[in-house]
Amino acid sequence: MRITIIGSGNVATHMAAAFKNAGHRIVQVYSPTMQNAALLAYHVGAEAIDQLADVNPETDIFIISVKDDAIIDVARQLAPYNKLTVHTSGATSISALEIFTANCGVFYPLQTFSKIRELNFLNVPLCIEGADDDITKQLQQLAQTISNNVYRVSSDQRKILHLAAVFACNFPNYLYHVAEQLLNQNQLDFNIIRPLIDETAQKVQQASPVQVQTGPAIRNDEKTMQAHMQLLDNSAELQAIYSMLSQAIIKMDKWG
Amino acid sequence: MRITIIGSGNVATHMAAAFKNAGHRIVQVYSPTMQNAALLAYHVGAEAIDQLADVNPETDIFIISVKDDAIIDVARQLAPYNKLTVHTSGATSISALEIFTANCGVFYPLQTFSKIRELNFLNVPLCIEGADDDITKQLQQLAQTISNNVYRVSSDQRKILHLAAVFACNFPNYLYHVAEQLLNQNQLDFNIIRPLIDETAQKVQQASPVQVQTGPAIRNDEKTMQAHMQLLDNSAELQAIYSMLSQAIIKMDKWG
Repeated sequence: MRITIIGSGNVATHMAAAFKNAGHRIVQVYSPTMQNAALLAYHVGAEAIDQLADVNPETDIFIISVKDDAIIDVARQLAPYNKLTVHTSGATSISALEIFTANCGVFYPLQTFSKIRELNFLNVPLCIEGADDDITKQLQQLAQTISNNVYRVSSDQRKILHLAAVFACNFPNYLYHVAEQLLNQNQLDFNIIRPLIDETAQKVQQASPVQVQTGPAIRNDEKTMQAHMQLLDNSAELQAIYSMLSQAIIKMDKWG
Repeated sequence: MRITIIGSGNVATHMAAAFKNAGHRIVQVYSPTMQNAALLAYHVGAEAIDQLADVNPETDIFIISVKDDAIIDVARQLAPYNKLTVHTSGATSISALEIFTANCGVFYPLQTFSKIRELNFLNVPLCIEGADDDITKQLQQLAQTISNNVYRVSSDQRKILHLAAVFACNFPNYLYHVAEQLLNQNQLDFNIIRPLIDETAQKVQQASPVQVQTGPAIRNDEKTMQAHMQLLDNSAELQAIYSMLSQAIIKMDKWG
């Protein structure tokens, strides 16, 4: 397909590269900052533009991968071209595009992207939604050229998925940060705990988290929890987090 | 070395197998439940006992891997043999053994063990502490036969490490559980989010968590956070957790 990428952030960058590798033609890359557009365009053999007025109409799909707040404005400006238009946002309903065109959908990759790490896009779960069945099928075919994990997900489900990702990714990463701070304050290297972080994530690749929960809270080991609270007594915030999460684990239903 | 394993839980099981593979001789395995002692003893070619009075004095080290509460009682019963004695507990000071013998130390593997997963013990961080320098050296040599990651860690540091492990392992696993529940309640499969959990842990194997924090809280994206809180309005507990962790992330020092 001929693909136009609107945006140059982490998602746009990884997705454009995946399309290119799968043999699609990236027609243009748009960013309001020409330097960013040019960098990504160079990597995927596309033309860089910094004005939506310069969009080449000889394309099959617009992929809008910009900040959530900017989606509606971009969609409005692309509407006159009357092309299949999708966004890549987890938190935005398909209706943000339907205001302007019935020929629309969503192409949401459920992964945490960063420029410092390459990843194999074939393993990235791609959540697609089309405004009608024909569009859904088109998007599914396109998605399967770059990912082995394609899911049909409604806008309501996608909101839940985005929320679940906060619990499964953003919050754990913050807790890794707490662990690093505790270690550093006590002349211990974060390296010592990295294998534990890895194994904790590996365990739930097969099992359900409830089957592999460990630690003082699930054993209701009050003595250890009290000792931990005392070690945290210079931080009311960490004590509150420790206490709240431990209470939640104590109440966990071990049978799922 | 000739090694006697006191205990038959997850840590005892993985450690005994690692010693056996490294060419050491496991003399005996003790458990108050003969069936458990026999199962592990069979795997490592040792004798099973269910009475500490049956301990064979022809050994070089006792490795006490029992519940924290039981360590002192076991150490008392082993004291008359006058052998090098270590425990494997993250939360217990070396002083629990020093009451009974000066020939003691700690041999704490910082990993989450489960019977459902094999793991390569060479990658498990082993935290050692000896009652004096000679013992520390002996334990270091022994540790290096089964692990490539041996650290000297004092009892005070080990307490912090154990606390950090709760933040890096037990709490993230609980949050994975929350994600699974949210998905299941909305007809979504936990599989869809497993690659995200994996990648989140992989990212911090090289980077510092503060460098790779993503999500609405670190962007201070109030609109998304409010939408998430609304999606959680049937659970005051999850709202409280969401709100508390998000506030903590907002205050995160991006420069570490």
